[in-house]
Amino acid sequence: MAKRSFWAWGNEQDEPTAAQMKTAAEQLSQRYGVDLTPVGPPTASGLSLRKPRITPPSALAGICSGDDHDRAVHTYGRSFRDRIRAFNYDFPNPPDVVARPKNEQDIEALLEWCSASGYATIPFGGGSSTVAGFEPPEGYDGIVTIDLEHLDQVLEIDDVSRAARIQGGVYGPALEDQLRPHGFTLRHYPQSFEFSTLGGWIATRSGGHYATNQTHIDDFVESVRMVTPAGPWESRRLPGSGAGPSPDRMAIGSEGILGIITEAWMRIQARPVFRASAGVTFPTFAAGAEAARRIVQTKLWPANCRLLDPVESAAAAGMDGTAALLVLGFESAEIPQGEFIRHAVDIAREAGGTIDESEIRISDGSSRSSGDTGRQGSVGAWRDSFLGAPYVKNHQAGLGLVTETMETSITWDRWAKMDEMVRGALRDALNRVCGGGSVSCRFTHVYTDGPAPYFTFEGMGRLGAELEMYAEIKQAASDAIMAAGGTITHHHAVGRLHRPWYDQQRPELFAQALKAAKLTLDPKGVLNPGLLINA
Amino acid sequence: MAKRSFWAWGNEQDEPTAAQMKTAAEQLSQRYGVDLTPVGPPTASGLSLRKPRITPPSALAGICSGDDHDRAVHTYGRSFRDRIRAFNYDFPNPPDVVARPKNEQDIEALLEWCSASGYATIPFGGGSSTVAGFEPPEGYDGIVTIDLEHLDQVLEIDDVSRAARIQGGVYGPALEDQLRPHGFTLRHYPQSFEFSTLGGWIATRSGGHYATNQTHIDDFVESVRMVTPAGPWESRRLPGSGAGPSPDRMAIGSEGILGIITEAWMRIQARPVFRASAGVTFPTFAAGAEAARRIVQTKLWPANCRLLDPVESAAAAGMDGTAALLVLGFESAEIPQGEFIRHAVDIAREAGGTIDESEIRISDGSSRSSGDTGRQGSVGAWRDSFLGAPYVKNHQAGLGLVTETMETSITWDRWAKMDEMVRGALRDALNRVCGGGSVSCRFTHVYTDGPAPYFTFEGMGRLGAELEMYAEIKQAASDAIMAAGGTITHHHAVGRLHRPWYDQQRPELFAQALKAAKLTLDPKGVLNPGLLINA
Repeated sequence: MAKRSFWAWGNEQDEPTAAQMKTAAEQLSQRYGVDLTPVGPPTASGLSLRKPRITPPSALAGICSGDDHDRAVHTYGRSFRDRIRAFNYDFPNPPDVVARPKNEQDIEALLEWCSASGYATIPFGGGSSTVAGFEPPEGYDGIVTIDLEHLDQVLEIDDVSRAARIQGGVYGPALEDQLRPHGFTLRHYPQSFEFSTLGGWIATRSGGHYATNQTHIDDFVESVRMVTPAGPWESRRLPGSGAGPSPDRMAIGSEGILGIITEAWMRIQARPVFRASAGVTFPTFAAGAEAARRIVQTKLWPANCRLLDPVESAAAAGMDGTAALLVLGFESAEIPQGEFIRHAVDIAREAGGTIDESEIRISDGSSRSSGDTGRQGSVGAWRDSFLGAPYVKNHQAGLGLVTETMETSITWDRWAKMDEMVRGALRDALNRVCGGGSVSCRFTHVYTDGPAPYFTFEGMGRLGAELEMYAEIKQAASDAIMAAGGTITHHHAVGRLHRPWYDQQRPELFAQALKAAKLTLDPKGVLNPGLLINA
Repeated sequence: MAKRSFWAWGNEQDEPTAAQMKTAAEQLSQRYGVDLTPVGPPTASGLSLRKPRITPPSALAGICSGDDHDRAVHTYGRSFRDRIRAFNYDFPNPPDVVARPKNEQDIEALLEWCSASGYATIPFGGGSSTVAGFEPPEGYDGIVTIDLEHLDQVLEIDDVSRAARIQGGVYGPALEDQLRPHGFTLRHYPQSFEFSTLGGWIATRSGGHYATNQTHIDDFVESVRMVTPAGPWESRRLPGSGAGPSPDRMAIGSEGILGIITEAWMRIQARPVFRASAGVTFPTFAAGAEAARRIVQTKLWPANCRLLDPVESAAAAGMDGTAALLVLGFESAEIPQGEFIRHAVDIAREAGGTIDESEIRISDGSSRSSGDTGRQGSVGAWRDSFLGAPYVKNHQAGLGLVTETMETSITWDRWAKMDEMVRGALRDALNRVCGGGSVSCRFTHVYTDGPAPYFTFEGMGRLGAELEMYAEIKQAASDAIMAAGGTITHHHAVGRLHRPWYDQQRPELFAQALKAAKLTLDPKGVLNPGLLINA
């Protein structure tokens, strides 16, 4: 198995070369009119972490590691803050132990040890959190991070119901590798797909492949099995139910505070054969938004309906920076999709969109171009950019750049005002903090009642001061999102990073109810303390 | 406002005439080969209830009633058990007070009075529960039922986001009447539509119009406002969110134990213009099920995809009793639906279904037949039967008939076995208890991973012994549903009736967590005690 980088997105072989970092420095020097000197990437040999403060009981020693590199990898996720701190070897509070249970009995034993000792106990999926979802808390005598990587199997496939029983620790690619021989796919592709797990997706309400209708992992969960300090929790496998509040909906989004997700029955599907895609351009982001609204409100339910503003369409899809781009896609295992995309394109054109007939790409599953639909032209450029984006950031490390993405959702009636408020807050903060910078936005998902806007900002900061500069910008934009009526996260989760704003948005009584529920399942309050609530 | 019948489905004017009851008696006499004598319907003047044991504080007296008829109407829902007991003037434990708050302040005052006094406090929507969802519990010194009928307004319409802020006490028809002038509809039509409310639908996870995709009211909730004994609970209006477990999903299905739903922002839609419908026949129920499975797994998402077994297709759609009927329907405000229904019909034919081309009815919104699509032929017969079914039962009261419906959901891999087990249990119990009877089944909703089967049973019992006979049959079938792996309810809720089986299906730790959550919101445990949990 490839060794994970302790600071960069990906594995060690994905870390940038000196040449790549030099090129990035040149590009950013040109973009910002400054003279940037690349510093070499950090090396594993430079790591020096606090020694483990606790020793696992002998029965658990075989599944526990105290290795520095291992503990560093399990300290931070992959947000801007995480990258900066890891790049600077800044690991003041790593886990003391990284445990890798082989089965539920191991998890039970770990929870028993941690509950008895009062150690913070942190479930770890793929490590791709951008919200400090598994960062150890301060104030504990011991921190045990539980990495589920050995729970990596698709255990059972029900091909009639199109469902599979899958272990929580399986990574995206390994999950799909196990479904593919049976002709199935989960078709849940968050940008973190390579380095995230099923259990992580469920615990964080991950947003996936589908831009409409079945947007979150929530929609694909048939049942969940968790191990909690108070015992096992398993819901019945049901296509639908009206029996009380949904137990699954309490587990989904619980961010590791209620239990460790060991298995789930997931709704899977036949692999798509018929595809259609189109990239429609609009003179403004607002015009594109109107088209997206009308399309989703027809309930045509395109798989893809992502809108890029002119800045993003230039950066991600190779366009000229004057037009917004609406990326539409339909897919099906059974039914040709040409008529569906034509309906969507008709609506987009009525809303002022432009597209050449030749840019509507339809694959009937038999033509040679089948595999390429959605992988050509502006749509294909967007796809490549989407998957490559996290790696690009590796190259830019150590140059003082301050950059991040922020995502939310809002009803259609308020989104234009939110767009203005958040862009305004970001521009003001960037001007104040960095003397300028760039702001862009896209819609990652759209609903009948509103879009999920995804903002990206970038400014040139000062090396060594990036974290403070970042914090000021992030605060300003997050406050604007709250003031506009949005959510602090549509699909990145709350984590430690978003907690102050989450506290503003959830009903206070819900937080109290959740705390009471947590203490029932986790009486010693050891599971991921400080996430979502204080308990 | 029409006065509600204290025993029959509907208002007093819907109570059966002596002639109607005589006809029903003749029909059943013939069906069962017995000689049945109709007894007259009960009359309001025959009611004699326990005197109210408590007196509201003077500040609340103006919104409280102790009238016998009023209290009788608020004692039972409209299940078989309810109808028998009400028909027999059997009201040993009615509410002492029926309160009709005019606003949230009234509700707060009522909750304060009840919490301070330890009175059972029961939220009441439209009174159509079939699971004893608002039946007063034993063992309380006082019972206060809170009828939300005055909270009956659509308060705000956001036509861009297609959402509306609606009060919890509004009945189905009044809700649609207020949306219609704006061109919108909620399009949630449970069979109880006339006598159920938005708050009741949310509290019980009502199943509605759409047979696929957006099956439950859950899918239309944008945010919820509840008044709880601990204060107000209001979630943020969001199209989608990934911020912790969904607060709304804790309120949805809470059956009145956490708070009183006073308002919700609901996703609404443009009224359909384009419609298409088809009734496809199959030689067996199993063949029709295979077609329904394939159609839903293509994600065409028909509005209607209801499968009737041969017994139901004869009774409800006027067919000859030898074939199953799959009722398909598509609808849209924007897009012609002909191609959609043709895809579905193609799949149904491949699965062995039969339909004449002339039976595929397509309305483009401009033809004269527009309003009739889905209202003709076997499909139209089904629709009329569906809406009229609750009234038919009124006519059959007082004759000893034992009849009820039971609904569940199950994954496709297990449904055939469940069908066998539940029908077997019902037939055995009917033979044992009634010396025979009839059993039928339909699918009310279908999911990619399984159907929601809806069983109907009927047998001739002995007048005066119906409740015991019913209990034995219901127990046998419910046990079979549990053994087969289903849910005790797909959309009728748990109530007091289903509690023993609900206790078998939900994770035990979820029940403990829910209890802890409830006691946070309702510290005195007065809200609908005994529902879902003991607290």
